[in-house]
Amino acid sequence: MPEARAGELLLRVREISVDPYVRGRMNEGPSYAPPIALGEPVCGEAVCEVIESKDPRYRSGQLVLAGTGWQEYAALPSSSVRPCDTGKSPRSWALGVLGMPGLTAYVGLLDIGRPLPSDTVVVAAATGPVGATVGQIAKIRGCRVVGVAGGADKCRHAVQVLGFDACVDHRSENFGAELAKACPAGIDVYFENVGGQVLYAVIPLLNREARVPVCGVIAWYNLAQLPPGPDMTPVLMRTILVQRVQMKGFIIFDHADREPDFRRDVGAWLAEGRIRYVEDAVEGLQRAPDALRSVLRGENFGKMIVRLP
Amino acid sequence: MPEARAGELLLRVREISVDPYVRGRMNEGPSYAPPIALGEPVCGEAVCEVIESKDPRYRSGQLVLAGTGWQEYAALPSSSVRPCDTGKSPRSWALGVLGMPGLTAYVGLLDIGRPLPSDTVVVAAATGPVGATVGQIAKIRGCRVVGVAGGADKCRHAVQVLGFDACVDHRSENFGAELAKACPAGIDVYFENVGGQVLYAVIPLLNREARVPVCGVIAWYNLAQLPPGPDMTPVLMRTILVQRVQMKGFIIFDHADREPDFRRDVGAWLAEGRIRYVEDAVEGLQRAPDALRSVLRGENFGKMIVRLP
Repeated sequence: MPEARAGELLLRVREISVDPYVRGRMNEGPSYAPPIALGEPVCGEAVCEVIESKDPRYRSGQLVLAGTGWQEYAALPSSSVRPCDTGKSPRSWALGVLGMPGLTAYVGLLDIGRPLPSDTVVVAAATGPVGATVGQIAKIRGCRVVGVAGGADKCRHAVQVLGFDACVDHRSENFGAELAKACPAGIDVYFENVGGQVLYAVIPLLNREARVPVCGVIAWYNLAQLPPGPDMTPVLMRTILVQRVQMKGFIIFDHADREPDFRRDVGAWLAEGRIRYVEDAVEGLQRAPDALRSVLRGENFGKMIVRLP
Repeated sequence: MPEARAGELLLRVREISVDPYVRGRMNEGPSYAPPIALGEPVCGEAVCEVIESKDPRYRSGQLVLAGTGWQEYAALPSSSVRPCDTGKSPRSWALGVLGMPGLTAYVGLLDIGRPLPSDTVVVAAATGPVGATVGQIAKIRGCRVVGVAGGADKCRHAVQVLGFDACVDHRSENFGAELAKACPAGIDVYFENVGGQVLYAVIPLLNREARVPVCGVIAWYNLAQLPPGPDMTPVLMRTILVQRVQMKGFIIFDHADREPDFRRDVGAWLAEGRIRYVEDAVEGLQRAPDALRSVLRGENFGKMIVRLP
């Protein structure tokens, strides 16, 4: 167990968030954040309990959010943490619908996707914390929402619990045709969080002036080399041109200014029962590697967290 | 020779514009405009002289712009033409810097590319009517401008006549390295009019929040099938994500509202000698097919037009 120095907090980690971006941090080379250094813990935000405070603004027993990564205890400067306040919701929701994944959905859909009522919005990983929130906010905005997910259980959940208009199984042999059938008026907003074959099925369905917020490309995070041909870039570029598509990448760190609006709106929607949220928790730090692999394979059902005893 | 009916004008075609988009109209299938029908003239805008007017608002001898396509005479409804007014500039410039290619450059660069002073702007087909105008407007806006062109003569012209800061020959064996060297601070705006290997060399140089107006992908217009692999889409999508790039396709028809600003600004810049313009004319309708092939191969030097006797 580390010791807290002046201005630091000694934290006991309670729940750790497991997110797809972590895989990207395991690659060398430039990205929007430095890779995880060898010998350092794998990165991740966590809900923690303050055990010892060397900053008078925090007290022992208080809950905070901190980027501890995969460890049981951490001593961190108080300036690097923030209070964990989820109101009447469970504390761990601060890692999901009330935290970074929720803000990602809110900013990506509303600010970059700019959906209009009656637009068709497509989102993959439909039962994950980002996709589920994207789809439910789009429903609140009056859109037709079509999810993409892996397997019948997730598709059923997206329609019956989350209220999507349809959800297509990307493992289906006829995935492209089924997606087209679920989007009879084409696609106005494609919230991109997977890339791969889902993107290729979406491209021919994009409507004029469609918007594509690019939030992640999980299908390609494990690529050791580029996929074999054909090169699909001409298809993508020609569609962007002919349909006047806008694609825009975004990283949630850049959008902290939207947090007050996000907390107000999503907090209210949760309280009103208009947004549903599901977690998929594993117990014990030793299961964290399996939890990450599960997220990258799409085997989780809902927001993946690791609970520490 | 056709005959003009009530409300029509009988036109003698004087100069025909030859543009890359014409190739796209020779493919079947949906696009932003219908393909050329078999038996119809190849499409193209032309400067014409009114020979006979059956609309009192037009008089014989007047110059107009009309979508006659590749023919010597046409009878068209007066509602489909508009007066050709280039001020002190040659009338044929209405097909180039003062017409559709000029407006394409103006809207694509200023409205979609949104260059800031000291941004690095890259544009291919640097001596063509769109690329040359993009680069010169970007210079007026205080940017570093790097052109891409085929061959030493065009590159020299871009720097010495058009005032670009650098111009890189895409036929060079070390094209990617030379482009990187010409863009030591990366690329903030890439005006996309070619696709292909130029795009692939640009992708790793795109800066955070870079803008990519997509105006054309001439390198791919003749594709009978997709290029062999590897599939470069993951590289493009990952860069859009990590660098928060915005790509936006546009078709100039949608931006007619910008024509008054365009005519005022580009007219003034031409009068002040701040924009230079070069034409590459062939004589006689029988040379039109060669002129189009030449444009698609990048063999023209400046705006390609066909002059009729």
